[in-house]
Amino acid sequence: MNNLELIKTLSRSTPSRIILLVIDGLGGLPRPDTGMTELETARTPNLDKLAARGVSGLSDPVGPGITPGSAPGHLSLFGYDPVDYNIGRGVVEAVGIDFELQPQDVAARGNFCTIDEAGLVTDRRAGRISTEKCTELCQLLDGLVIEGVRVIVRPVKDYRFIAVFRGEDIRTEITDSDPQQIGVAPLEITALSSAAEKTADIANQFVAQAKTILSQHHPTNMVLLRGFSRHPQLPDMSEIYKLKPAAIACYPMYRGLARLVGMNVLETGITIEEEFRTLTESYNDYDFFFLHVKGTDAAGEDGDFDLKVNIIEQVDNVLPELINLQPDVIIVTGDHSTPALFQGHSWHPVPLLLSSRWCRPDRVNTFSESACISGGLGRLPATQIMPLAMANALKLAKFGA
Amino acid sequence: MNNLELIKTLSRSTPSRIILLVIDGLGGLPRPDTGMTELETARTPNLDKLAARGVSGLSDPVGPGITPGSAPGHLSLFGYDPVDYNIGRGVVEAVGIDFELQPQDVAARGNFCTIDEAGLVTDRRAGRISTEKCTELCQLLDGLVIEGVRVIVRPVKDYRFIAVFRGEDIRTEITDSDPQQIGVAPLEITALSSAAEKTADIANQFVAQAKTILSQHHPTNMVLLRGFSRHPQLPDMSEIYKLKPAAIACYPMYRGLARLVGMNVLETGITIEEEFRTLTESYNDYDFFFLHVKGTDAAGEDGDFDLKVNIIEQVDNVLPELINLQPDVIIVTGDHSTPALFQGHSWHPVPLLLSSRWCRPDRVNTFSESACISGGLGRLPATQIMPLAMANALKLAKFGA
Repeated sequence: MNNLELIKTLSRSTPSRIILLVIDGLGGLPRPDTGMTELETARTPNLDKLAARGVSGLSDPVGPGITPGSAPGHLSLFGYDPVDYNIGRGVVEAVGIDFELQPQDVAARGNFCTIDEAGLVTDRRAGRISTEKCTELCQLLDGLVIEGVRVIVRPVKDYRFIAVFRGEDIRTEITDSDPQQIGVAPLEITALSSAAEKTADIANQFVAQAKTILSQHHPTNMVLLRGFSRHPQLPDMSEIYKLKPAAIACYPMYRGLARLVGMNVLETGITIEEEFRTLTESYNDYDFFFLHVKGTDAAGEDGDFDLKVNIIEQVDNVLPELINLQPDVIIVTGDHSTPALFQGHSWHPVPLLLSSRWCRPDRVNTFSESACISGGLGRLPATQIMPLAMANALKLAKFGA
Repeated sequence: MNNLELIKTLSRSTPSRIILLVIDGLGGLPRPDTGMTELETARTPNLDKLAARGVSGLSDPVGPGITPGSAPGHLSLFGYDPVDYNIGRGVVEAVGIDFELQPQDVAARGNFCTIDEAGLVTDRRAGRISTEKCTELCQLLDGLVIEGVRVIVRPVKDYRFIAVFRGEDIRTEITDSDPQQIGVAPLEITALSSAAEKTADIANQFVAQAKTILSQHHPTNMVLLRGFSRHPQLPDMSEIYKLKPAAIACYPMYRGLARLVGMNVLETGITIEEEFRTLTESYNDYDFFFLHVKGTDAAGEDGDFDLKVNIIEQVDNVLPELINLQPDVIIVTGDHSTPALFQGHSWHPVPLLLSSRWCRPDRVNTFSESACISGGLGRLPATQIMPLAMANALKLAKFGA
């Protein structure tokens, strides 16, 4: 019996409420001149108060040393083993825009990019074009039919789109065309099994036709595809945890991930304040809230230490609104670390705090990487956060006689 | 997908270098009069400096409470689950002396021992005879053919040898003759399956013939056999980690273990200084070094607290030579604990430190068992050390979308 199956046998519906606040890419690395991480630098009186009355720790989204993408980072927080349930990028983007994938569809994540006269990629994001421009370009490519397979193209955000291949006998076992670097040509898509040769051929034909159609549209004169994948059939959170879960996230991918595990994705605005207002307004309608703050990860990826500090302070500033709702359990953590000094996702364990009437408080009274080391939760796999939340909400029955 | 398979999908070759310094049996227990362990008693300014700028923790080679032998202790450090990959002692000794095991061979570890007139073991090591003496005795026993099965006998070191049974239908499912204690007779070897009855019979005949041949050779008048086993087919480290790994170890068993996972075993001397010199000389030729210090374990086994302290100080003394090479990642740990007060391998978790540009430093500034408890790595299975080393060397790609 895996962990989810065990939890499913123990979970029960109660009126208690859980809020999981995910500050994306929360974990950091110390700046050499101060010896303090982003979280340690930020002035966070409210988070510190929460840490003082709660219990802290450090979590590993996948395992020590493993740097998670956003999908495994979040699935793990939702309690799903991210290695057992590895979700393709195409699917993540598709569900993020509410695209209804049919069971046999194969979705790829696409970038509009720039190639030079020699055909080499000079910008994988085509100067980060607007979503409006992306939408126009998608209309040019949408609806091509290649050997009976229809290719549906939909804009996601900025330079990103999805290409969904719909038809008979379309497979996922094909390689990416996105080389994930500049200065080289887009890669030929190849089949990883003989059954997938037709799919690889159709995908290459699509790329060739897109190149022709886009040839006069510099800097968006080429496409890159990656993460060919099918809809996974994940068990719903309502089934595993007997929860009525809601997601508050403004960024499509996280909305998509939440939908994959059966959350109700709420309409919200793009600021932290708007997200917290959505939480307050919908608080009576659900018993589990996944509240996602994106800015910290983006600042970390951009290497902007001060901006990441600032966004953490913004979150701290609105936190009383959440606390005043008096949820039974509050979890604050990240889906992975994105140290500004590292300018990318990293493997470092993630600060974690849990506050509830029934937690066993420790001596930690600030929320920081170094304080969490001595926290009462120790160092644990992120998949164990949901069982802890459920237990603290008194939503798990005793195991065994 | 197990951990090794996951790492294999993520690992990539880069110019960065990792050094894994294994101080055998490093972990200790406090001496009652001082309250300090061997590591805490030793003056270790260089290890302490490394701990101060690195991140520390405690590792479990197999699991809490499990006392590992040398083979599982090391396999775990190399990232291989020691329960999945349990290697027989016979095989470990055979590969340690470069003996080429054929796939169907069954190897046993042998001791020359002393029995009294009643046939009871009085010294399991026959007074720790010299390797020269052992070699002479092995020649007396080598090449016996019993029911068509040839028994190849080769000296290992001191009182230790291997007996390799080569022939048709030889099995490993038989018990040891070594009782692992004195005052009792060597045990009858018995089959653990009906298919192994022939093998048990042949092994008993070999022991009986050896007893006759050795009868005039007191104190080496008997043999004890244990760990009947076949060559395991372990995946190479080069395949899993894309590393070019080298082993620097003077003791045959550790050389053998390194060879089992595909390391290049370098020629070296028997002192710590010679081992470190080998490291410096071969530094440009490999990107992973397993450097093994044996003396600490031997001193622990002998209950010699002061000698173990002294050897730790010797290691500390030559450590700058290693640090000056400026490897991207340095790991210092042990394969298990061998507290001098316990006079044997033990289950206690093992001090661990990792230093790299990308580690998240903690507040630990001395290298000791009690300081490691508060380290940023927490307490983790030793199989996770290699993934951490690989991550810190930037040799692991991101997992998932």
